[in-house]
Amino acid sequence: MAAVGIIGGSGYTGGELLRILARHSQVEVACVTSREHAGRPVHKVHPNLRRVLELSFEAPDYDRVAERCDLVFCATPHGVSMQVVPLLLERGVRVVDLSGDFRFGDVAVYERYYGRKHVAPEVRGVYGLPELYRKEIEKAELVANPGCYPTAVILGLVPLLRGRTIDPSFIVADAKSGISGAGNRPRETTHFPNAAESVLAYRVASHQHLPEIEQELQRFSSEVRVSFVPHIVPVIRGLTATLHCQLTRSMDPEEVRELYVEFYRDEPFVRVLEAGEVPRLSAVRGSNFIDIGAFAVDEERGRVVVVAAIDNLVKGASGQAVQNMNIMLGFSEEEGLRGVAIHP
Amino acid sequence: MAAVGIIGGSGYTGGELLRILARHSQVEVACVTSREHAGRPVHKVHPNLRRVLELSFEAPDYDRVAERCDLVFCATPHGVSMQVVPLLLERGVRVVDLSGDFRFGDVAVYERYYGRKHVAPEVRGVYGLPELYRKEIEKAELVANPGCYPTAVILGLVPLLRGRTIDPSFIVADAKSGISGAGNRPRETTHFPNAAESVLAYRVASHQHLPEIEQELQRFSSEVRVSFVPHIVPVIRGLTATLHCQLTRSMDPEEVRELYVEFYRDEPFVRVLEAGEVPRLSAVRGSNFIDIGAFAVDEERGRVVVVAAIDNLVKGASGQAVQNMNIMLGFSEEEGLRGVAIHP
Amino acid sequence: MAAVGIIGGSGYTGGELLRILARHSQVEVACVTSREHAGRPVHKVHPNLRRVLELSFEAPDYDRVAERCDLVFCATPHGVSMQVVPLLLERGVRVVDLSGDFRFGDVAVYERYYGRKHVAPEVRGVYGLPELYRKEIEKAELVANPGCYPTAVILGLVPLLRGRTIDPSFIVADAKSGISGAGNRPRETTHFPNAAESVLAYRVASHQHLPEIEQELQRFSSEVRVSFVPHIVPVIRGLTATLHCQLTRSMDPEEVRELYVEFYRDEPFVRVLEAGEVPRLSAVRGSNFIDIGAFAVDEERGRVVVVAAIDNLVKGASGQAVQNMNIMLGFSEEEGLRGVAIHP
Amino acid sequence: MAAVGIIGGSGYTGGELLRILARHSQVEVACVTSREHAGRPVHKVHPNLRRVLELSFEAPDYDRVAERCDLVFCATPHGVSMQVVPLLLERGVRVVDLSGDFRFGDVAVYERYYGRKHVAPEVRGVYGLPELYRKEIEKAELVANPGCYPTAVILGLVPLLRGRTIDPSFIVADAKSGISGAGNRPRETTHFPNAAESVLAYRVASHQHLPEIEQELQRFSSEVRVSFVPHIVPVIRGLTATLHCQLTRSMDPEEVRELYVEFYRDEPFVRVLEAGEVPRLSAVRGSNFIDIGAFAVDEERGRVVVVAAIDNLVKGASGQAVQNMNIMLGFSEEEGLRGVAIHP
Repeated sequence: MAAVGIIGGSGYTGGELLRILARHSQVEVACVTSREHAGRPVHKVHPNLRRVLELSFEAPDYDRVAERCDLVFCATPHGVSMQVVPLLLERGVRVVDLSGDFRFGDVAVYERYYGRKHVAPEVRGVYGLPELYRKEIEKAELVANPGCYPTAVILGLVPLLRGRTIDPSFIVADAKSGISGAGNRPRETTHFPNAAESVLAYRVASHQHLPEIEQELQRFSSEVRVSFVPHIVPVIRGLTATLHCQLTRSMDPEEVRELYVEFYRDEPFVRVLEAGEVPRLSAVRGSNFIDIGAFAVDEERGRVVVVAAIDNLVKGASGQAVQNMNIMLGFSEEEGLRGVAIHP
Repeated sequence: MAAVGIIGGSGYTGGELLRILARHSQVEVACVTSREHAGRPVHKVHPNLRRVLELSFEAPDYDRVAERCDLVFCATPHGVSMQVVPLLLERGVRVVDLSGDFRFGDVAVYERYYGRKHVAPEVRGVYGLPELYRKEIEKAELVANPGCYPTAVILGLVPLLRGRTIDPSFIVADAKSGISGAGNRPRETTHFPNAAESVLAYRVASHQHLPEIEQELQRFSSEVRVSFVPHIVPVIRGLTATLHCQLTRSMDPEEVRELYVEFYRDEPFVRVLEAGEVPRLSAVRGSNFIDIGAFAVDEERGRVVVVAAIDNLVKGASGQAVQNMNIMLGFSEEEGLRGVAIHP
Repeated sequence: MAAVGIIGGSGYTGGELLRILARHSQVEVACVTSREHAGRPVHKVHPNLRRVLELSFEAPDYDRVAERCDLVFCATPHGVSMQVVPLLLERGVRVVDLSGDFRFGDVAVYERYYGRKHVAPEVRGVYGLPELYRKEIEKAELVANPGCYPTAVILGLVPLLRGRTIDPSFIVADAKSGISGAGNRPRETTHFPNAAESVLAYRVASHQHLPEIEQELQRFSSEVRVSFVPHIVPVIRGLTATLHCQLTRSMDPEEVRELYVEFYRDEPFVRVLEAGEVPRLSAVRGSNFIDIGAFAVDEERGRVVVVAAIDNLVKGASGQAVQNMNIMLGFSEEEGLRGVAIHP
Repeated sequence: MAAVGIIGGSGYTGGELLRILARHSQVEVACVTSREHAGRPVHKVHPNLRRVLELSFEAPDYDRVAERCDLVFCATPHGVSMQVVPLLLERGVRVVDLSGDFRFGDVAVYERYYGRKHVAPEVRGVYGLPELYRKEIEKAELVANPGCYPTAVILGLVPLLRGRTIDPSFIVADAKSGISGAGNRPRETTHFPNAAESVLAYRVASHQHLPEIEQELQRFSSEVRVSFVPHIVPVIRGLTATLHCQLTRSMDPEEVRELYVEFYRDEPFVRVLEAGEVPRLSAVRGSNFIDIGAFAVDEERGRVVVVAAIDNLVKGASGQAVQNMNIMLGFSEEEGLRGVAIHP
């Protein structure tokens, strides 16, 4: 039984960590912090946890957190994690950080896209995408959990890219996310009368997940250039990425699909659909799966389209964080993550 | 390890049984039938079950079902269950039936509200509301699993009624259900452009769940009369009942609440909220809990309002069916039902 | 051509007034005020008005407003209107006020339910429900535009009440409103992940529209007592009230309906559906109609249920305000309000 | 006063034609046909038209239709229009056809993408996009009203293409449509529990609107190749197209925007937003406007992204059809189309 803590547990990713960990057989949640809600039972903020987890938020005290925990999740926002994580690492605790603060090899890129100075540029994390970096994650002191969009886009493109079957300079990732991705603070774009019956492109061509996507994909080809546009759609949970590519050689849908089947053969959380089958959000809602499908080839134009779908709060955030924890602590990678998606 | 079967497994309640049973430690799904989908893997109909349950639908053959199963769920529609259930009982299998066919003590009431002749009037089931009939369910050959609306309305009213604190002839149950309650067959009222941005009262004052509600409540007072109106709201899952009553004596909200706390003290799936707290659907979505709250007293008018909320497919159908099975087979009542609600 | 102004034009009711008045043939919008947005074109706040209305918000200056306007709409919140309206009346301008500040005959009731002291208790408005008070509205200096819930509930009950066909002490009004009724300020309950897939009862048995409803209905019977519970449903626009009553004598649905047909015979904005037909929100969305239907009689229990539906921002607010203005200024009552509902 | 008819008036585009024409000052609806609903008042199918339009469906009789009408809208499905339109043209009636049957210069392309033989290959229509073909529409006997996706995609790309500022072989049009675009027949993908909380790519790389888009864009550059993927999103009305292009020369957002301002300077229904402003569906919902915005330039990658938004049933279908009719009959192009969008 390992003891884990959560820093910043009142947001959606914090709540989702608690939902998953409450049913994890190898782990106990030793503490969960929230400045704003210190002293209140967690179910006052996450009503689904009533009678499920008898725990109250506490104010953050990193010494006390470090004493009690083998591993800590930082579910703190960008800019806060860079301050908190070093304090935890110094105290000898392993960390999974869910923010964007430690995902970049090149701090200058971070600073440009996140619009702030990095206060701990010397701290480096392992990029927590188990399908690419499982070995490194095992031994990592700090895992930088990937962004929701990058998880879907990277996993959706790698098999095509590494096969050199597509032109790396012509990639369009058009993504649609549920609104929980914006967090639990009400704002104008999440106000129901604005968000319902709406589709809204945002941070067009300037979203901070773009360089994260390119950083990872450029390991397969330095010429990778992505046109990435995220959209908010009237969905609570779920994220889908439609990936438009230019083939470098003629392929049929089955050949395309075969690249995915092979690459993800032993992956517990990647499901490769049939060619022509398009992923549905309800098939992943609440679960840690990523579904990849479509594999549609337009022969006349030499194009291929792949679609990937995840639950942005699970495989796109807290579920993947627990998957990383399982790898770090030597548990079965699926432990705590066997929950079946809620369909419909 | 018990073996169970599902008759009529392609609908939403069938899919939900499979979702729950796939993670049940004491039970194996021996067979699931569907005339329409015989031969197809279950995940072609329930996409959330891909890689979760490697099972295919088979055509119904009651001899073969009975041979292999200790207990069978009938997730068949009203009118079909009355034909299937006797065949199973004859073959010595215990049954949990999710239709309305065996819920009524008085067959004439059934025939009037369901508009069809009952072909097995001599077969009697135990009404499968564990909070009221746990003892009888233990030994039952046939459990008639309650309707979704009755589950919420009955559990929301019993503590008030048995305390004789309300006028039994003035009860209004105004209920709102998610659209999955209408099943998985597309129809005009479930067509997205009709169902979204809509609230629709239906079968006003004539819904077949009205006599089921009154039958059970009249065990507490023969004068019970309910004005029951169900509505369809643009929600996939979830059902809430707003219960308006006339107090027979002055009470404050805490006293009202105390009746519920006491009556449901040992119930694993009933959560009594604080007075003034109103149940939220996300707190029960995907879980087997019923949340009961509000306990609002209007002193000037002598009224009290209680609100109850469930997931219509879980506590309102398949979760409760598994809870009944657990009782019948002597398992822990919570086994397979510890899944935490998906919030947000 | 009359000149009108709008005080507090940046909210939803302000926007809706502008949408309607932009196509009104007898009226010109002389000014629209907003402290927060002074100087900005209206289409920056109400994007539907781009190229429709070339007008900018100005800071409120009541002298200048009064000089330029024959009539002013106050779309200010409760508590603000009571300060603004007297200033306008003093300057000789006629006013339609959309807040609750001037709807009550008894200021003590206002103060109790709105939880604030009234600063202009001597100012009295005519209650702006044209179907009941058309004559008084014609000559009024100040019209207090009704609340959205009261509009639906009162118009849905009056024909039954005045016929003395129902027990005035047993009335339940269970209402469901779209979220635009909560205004345009983001808050926790309007945050999409909370508001979608949700039904939420609120201010149970204590909503400030309850005394407004009873005040008007008690003119027909002093014994009227209403159990009123409003709910928020995941709908942008639209409001429906399900009205449960106890009949004092046996009636069939056609007789019930006939009471409505007769009472509303000459009303331009009241549509009486067939018995058994239930109003749909899409039939009124964006229009000034109220649809009334169901007329369901439960003979066995002596109950009748009527359902009324409106667009909460039109007949429930700004449309009715323009209807009142048309009456006050002697225009055709339908002018500017002939827009057809948006279905689907 | 012109007399117009509608063939196939029971679907969504038929209903929308009636909604618009009911308030058109120069036109009277002489007849509306529907085999299925012949004899029923239109408001039984389109509930928003109750008391707005006193008209009943009639069975189609082309002689009688031709006698009474100056112009006829065919709101019939693909495959039916090709049979009906020639009958009307023979009888001397001008026609606006809303199906895809007459949009193609090359019948072979039609037959390939629509999967059926064309029975009237000799009949040619003018492509009814007024912004490109106003002069031809004026005199046309038959106008082929554009598809919803092509309207948004073509108008969103033409200013860039004709300026030769983008690479015509690298164009991705990723589009998202409300579900009313699928018509009013319930089907599996439009069933609320499937369609809500969902984003679904469909007919990936094979949608019949792709060749329509390329046909029109190739008039500006024969090398145009589009990767087009449509998605269904949980929205009733509204369609947005995100257009990803590769710039052939360095441009800033204002320069890009200027191309649009100039090209659409005199267009009554095209609104060009500010650079950085993204179109919102509520700004066009129920109206005939197309809003075009974003104009986001990614200098580093040489990409530009433009977003266009329409109401799929108005500018994407019936509104544009009435706009075409206005041009054909010599009315003001805006007549009947001044309705302001419903926001929120």
